[in-house]
Amino acid sequence: MKIIIIGATGTIGKHVTKALDGQSEIVKVGLNSGDYQVDISDIISIKELFEKVGRFDALISTTGDAHFGPLRDMTDAEFRIGINSKLMGQINLVLIGQHYINPKGSFTLTSGSLSEDPIVSGASVSAVNGALDSFVRAAAIELENGVRINAVGPDVVEESPAYFPYFPGHIPVTMHSVAQAYVRSVLGAQTGQIYKVL
Amino acid sequence: MKIIIIGATGTIGKHVTKALDGQSEIVKVGLNSGDYQVDISDIISIKELFEKVGRFDALISTTGDAHFGPLRDMTDAEFRIGINSKLMGQINLVLIGQHYINPKGSFTLTSGSLSEDPIVSGASVSAVNGALDSFVRAAAIELENGVRINAVGPDVVEESPAYFPYFPGHIPVTMHSVAQAYVRSVLGAQTGQIYKVL
Repeated sequence: MKIIIIGATGTIGKHVTKALDGQSEIVKVGLNSGDYQVDISDIISIKELFEKVGRFDALISTTGDAHFGPLRDMTDAEFRIGINSKLMGQINLVLIGQHYINPKGSFTLTSGSLSEDPIVSGASVSAVNGALDSFVRAAAIELENGVRINAVGPDVVEESPAYFPYFPGHIPVTMHSVAQAYVRSVLGAQTGQIYKVL
Repeated sequence: MKIIIIGATGTIGKHVTKALDGQSEIVKVGLNSGDYQVDISDIISIKELFEKVGRFDALISTTGDAHFGPLRDMTDAEFRIGINSKLMGQINLVLIGQHYINPKGSFTLTSGSLSEDPIVSGASVSAVNGALDSFVRAAAIELENGVRINAVGPDVVEESPAYFPYFPGHIPVTMHSVAQAYVRSVLGAQTGQIYKVL
């Protein structure tokens, strides 16, 4: 099984890579690192990636920027950081990748708990995550040839202490729990699911 | 109570306007019609609207374009029709409007049932509606001075027969039910709610 991991060297990606290593051919992709490079905010860059990597069985995306900041001061430009990167970047991986994925393949995107459980300064991230959750449910009923799609929606993770102040009272989730949610999506058979890791 | 209705002459807006008329000062806004004009995809146009209308007590948005079409053929550009209009247009009404709204005022946006209940050809609309639902939950915990925010999320409405073929088995909801959901948001006291009309 050939698995593309976008963001393979990131906080979550490196654990997902480790969890899936050995039993699969892993193609590590990063902005500046990995076997191949991609800028997910650029559809030309995404198309070039798929042309280089060729057909594959699973794509995992653990990447995407978004803006944290008070709603009172938030601007359209700040809000669109997440729209262009975490949201449209991941959606374009699917819109373009659907033409390169093998039958019975799977897409696994990264959403987050803020879609349903908001925090102060997280309005744009909530919107992006909510869009991803709904997109996954919708795309699941249209993808062809048995191709599946799910999202993993973690709470704040234990290896991102910089975010802890934004999440008062949240118990950071373990990297093991998060990585296994991606494994469940790729090696399981469900589609249209949001695997919350809380 | 001064209520701004964006999309006041549209399919939903005209019924909301009628339902609230008489007990309030209604400011009707449209792209080309109404007391004032706005292009919600343009933040300059939104700022100009608020400068002209001045302070207000409630804003209802019943407008925003989005693309329906098969996932298989969907492009980034088609997906972004809804991102730029229905999503960022309505969010910018809040980001900018929060600086003009009176204390204890309210914003009411328009989402839709596709955020949780997808249909074929509706993936981009699902994503936009999911983003709006999550944004409303998040913005509700940050808006200041008692300002509230809710969304109305209708299923296909009885006066939009062009959409019926996309919604097999859905029983179109009455314009009366839809209009009353906006009334509930504006004249009620809840915040962070998605009023589904199914």
